[in-house]
Amino acid sequence: MPAEPSTDAARPADAPAPNPARGAGNCASNHARSAAGAIPPEGFGEGRGGGSSFQEMWRELAPIGRDADTHGYRRHAWTPADADCRAWFRAQAESRGLGYEVDRNGNQWAWAGDPEAGDAVVTGSHLDSVPDGGAFDGPLGVVSSFAALDELRRRGAELTRPLAITNFGDEEGARFGLACVGSRLTAGQLTVEAAHRLRDADGVSLPQAMERAGYDPDAIGPDPERLARIGAFVELHVEQGRALDLSGDAVGIASAIWPHGRWRFDFAGEANHAGTTRLVDRRDPMLTYAETVLAARREAELAGAVATFGKISCEPNGVNAIPSMVRGWLDSRAADQSTLDTVVTAIERAARERAERDGVDLSVVRESFTPVVEFEHALRDEIAKILGGGIPVLGTGAGHDAGILSGSIPTAMLFVRNPTGVSHSPAEFAGEDDCVAGVLALADVLEGLACR
Amino acid sequence: MPAEPSTDAARPADAPAPNPARGAGNCASNHARSAAGAIPPEGFGEGRGGGSSFQEMWRELAPIGRDADTHGYRRHAWTPADADCRAWFRAQAESRGLGYEVDRNGNQWAWAGDPEAGDAVVTGSHLDSVPDGGAFDGPLGVVSSFAALDELRRRGAELTRPLAITNFGDEEGARFGLACVGSRLTAGQLTVEAAHRLRDADGVSLPQAMERAGYDPDAIGPDPERLARIGAFVELHVEQGRALDLSGDAVGIASAIWPHGRWRFDFAGEANHAGTTRLVDRRDPMLTYAETVLAARREAELAGAVATFGKISCEPNGVNAIPSMVRGWLDSRAADQSTLDTVVTAIERAARERAERDGVDLSVVRESFTPVVEFEHALRDEIAKILGGGIPVLGTGAGHDAGILSGSIPTAMLFVRNPTGVSHSPAEFAGEDDCVAGVLALADVLEGLACR
Repeated sequence: MPAEPSTDAARPADAPAPNPARGAGNCASNHARSAAGAIPPEGFGEGRGGGSSFQEMWRELAPIGRDADTHGYRRHAWTPADADCRAWFRAQAESRGLGYEVDRNGNQWAWAGDPEAGDAVVTGSHLDSVPDGGAFDGPLGVVSSFAALDELRRRGAELTRPLAITNFGDEEGARFGLACVGSRLTAGQLTVEAAHRLRDADGVSLPQAMERAGYDPDAIGPDPERLARIGAFVELHVEQGRALDLSGDAVGIASAIWPHGRWRFDFAGEANHAGTTRLVDRRDPMLTYAETVLAARREAELAGAVATFGKISCEPNGVNAIPSMVRGWLDSRAADQSTLDTVVTAIERAARERAERDGVDLSVVRESFTPVVEFEHALRDEIAKILGGGIPVLGTGAGHDAGILSGSIPTAMLFVRNPTGVSHSPAEFAGEDDCVAGVLALADVLEGLACR
Repeated sequence: MPAEPSTDAARPADAPAPNPARGAGNCASNHARSAAGAIPPEGFGEGRGGGSSFQEMWRELAPIGRDADTHGYRRHAWTPADADCRAWFRAQAESRGLGYEVDRNGNQWAWAGDPEAGDAVVTGSHLDSVPDGGAFDGPLGVVSSFAALDELRRRGAELTRPLAITNFGDEEGARFGLACVGSRLTAGQLTVEAAHRLRDADGVSLPQAMERAGYDPDAIGPDPERLARIGAFVELHVEQGRALDLSGDAVGIASAIWPHGRWRFDFAGEANHAGTTRLVDRRDPMLTYAETVLAARREAELAGAVATFGKISCEPNGVNAIPSMVRGWLDSRAADQSTLDTVVTAIERAARERAERDGVDLSVVRESFTPVVEFEHALRDEIAKILGGGIPVLGTGAGHDAGILSGSIPTAMLFVRNPTGVSHSPAEFAGEDDCVAGVLALADVLEGLACR
């Protein structure tokens, strides 16, 4: 959504609040949308519609799972901090008179309207975090969902489709090493057997962790009936990059999740004495690795992609030993498959050229690959129309529950400006005005989709 | 010693063997030296003079502490494999009628002549190994010492100075992390308190390990009286590089042990999401590290020095995370202090330039430094004269007991050609002819020094 106010007039602040127990307003104000980026309308989020204000919700969540030293969040799946977040979600649902349920995979749902009616519009995100994560990745989407519902009620909008707010479990995968476990299980993209094999760093299995948190691990598995209730899923998320900051927009729409792969480069040289081995006699794989790291940056720059060597292992890793083996892991992502292929091929070519010069043997293994996720064009176009012309449409390199669900149901994503681009860090940030713009845009989308 | 035969005639094979109990021959054959690199004289090392032949000694040592899988040696200080090596040393001494003793620091000595007479000529090396080390680094010097004594006796040489063969304990430092512990203690370059603090990977202290091996750890400490007995120490060692192979020589003399330092480079960047963070927004310390690795190679090449990044640590070391910190350890050595300074300064400058471009903070800490060890010129010149014109004189990047002792007594080193240059590896190798050349050169040196 553009940062500049649209020409639509702000909705009157004194519109009647609907009865929360009814779970819907009317659609009379459908065409009078709020201006994203503008000063919040008087009374915005001040507890109308039966819920807390955005600011109140944010304050309540802020201390949960926050490390006193790093100021980062450690809300890992099925831990006490996660349980506190989940209790907060349930309280938000119940205080608004929404129908609360937990599905077989531990995902939370808060329903306005009849879940069985079908063609529901669902919004939400996740409340768990990476280790020492920021406050916004996940929670911004959940808090904005409740705030958008409050806004719909404030507007007096009346639902013509069921509306639900979700909190997907274990999105970050920080504890068990696999992201989006809750949505993967539900969508049948993770088998029960594979889920049972997941272990955390202390050897606790996913079923054990769920059981200790009070959930039934025997119930987990695909949930096609639940997905069949949903006509559209919209996830609001803080941007994990600076595209919106650079374009000067508070809110944007996702086009796609970039194709994404991980490759392991094994550089095999020859261990030898660092003090006595002449340079010309060396087969030093650290040199080949170093050249490859620089090639990755260069090729990614040329192609407008990203490429990162963030993990390395070295043997014997001794100060006075030329390494026998250096392993480097390449993470690369690009807007499309062909660009990604070009980048990775060029990196590998540079690595092989240098390996030959260094007398190093190179093997490259693709360890994982996720093809591009294109969000449904019809839904995306509809949302773009609702939000008005000129709203930026941007790809993202990060995975999301919306990407998982897009294989089963129509999904879309809204991004909120991140002025520094920093994510997965205590420094992750979004400005208050932009958060308000996100809430109003989401309210507009929900109203447009669910109140026609 | 040149690989081409000298013009000196080989000594007759039927020269009378001296009485081993007397510990000396006569010096009549002083000027008729053997040709290094030539076919071994008939009967060379065939057990004359009361000892085993070189080949027999080599065969006896070969299986001790050798790993069945890697074929590398694991003769770490004060282990059963080390004890077997030491028992072998004692048996060699006793079978030759030499006076056997162990000093307060566990170094073994085999004496021909009266140790108390003073101005002794001592030769030897060490029998311990690095993990999965080769057969030659250390044992070649000890075996060659016994074989050279056998050769002296075969020649009928008579000692005018006491002669001893040594096995210094814990030269490689593989178990307790500090090299040359036996010679350092003896020379007073390692305090008793510091030695008591040494621990192996299992938490066993050096005193505990010595006690379990049957030695008295309360006895360790400086041994100036013992050093005062010695007029010259000559260590023969396999070359750990290819200088002799390139010059076409079987044997060379050490000029110096290069000055040697270790520096820790801390590259501090900013952890961020590898998928979503635009390249221009990154502060990726892996890039700075990579540039520095390549700069180290380039600067070392330009200066004729060596520089190695063989050890690295990375945080958080996650495949999808731009690192927050990369630490790299630089090992650099050069023929002289000024060259080493130039190389390290240039590497650091390149690192700082790239760090500025990458938005990375760099700190460089010198973790250790060993100044140049110049072997005594008078002794070196005398040995060069004994071995004839044209013998190569070469520096080395590796530390040795001879380097430690050079601070207290006149020392020298002989190197034997290593055709691959590989060291500290099961592939470490020296050819049989070159080993024989080494024995004969050492015999010439001992004869020249101790039989005048």
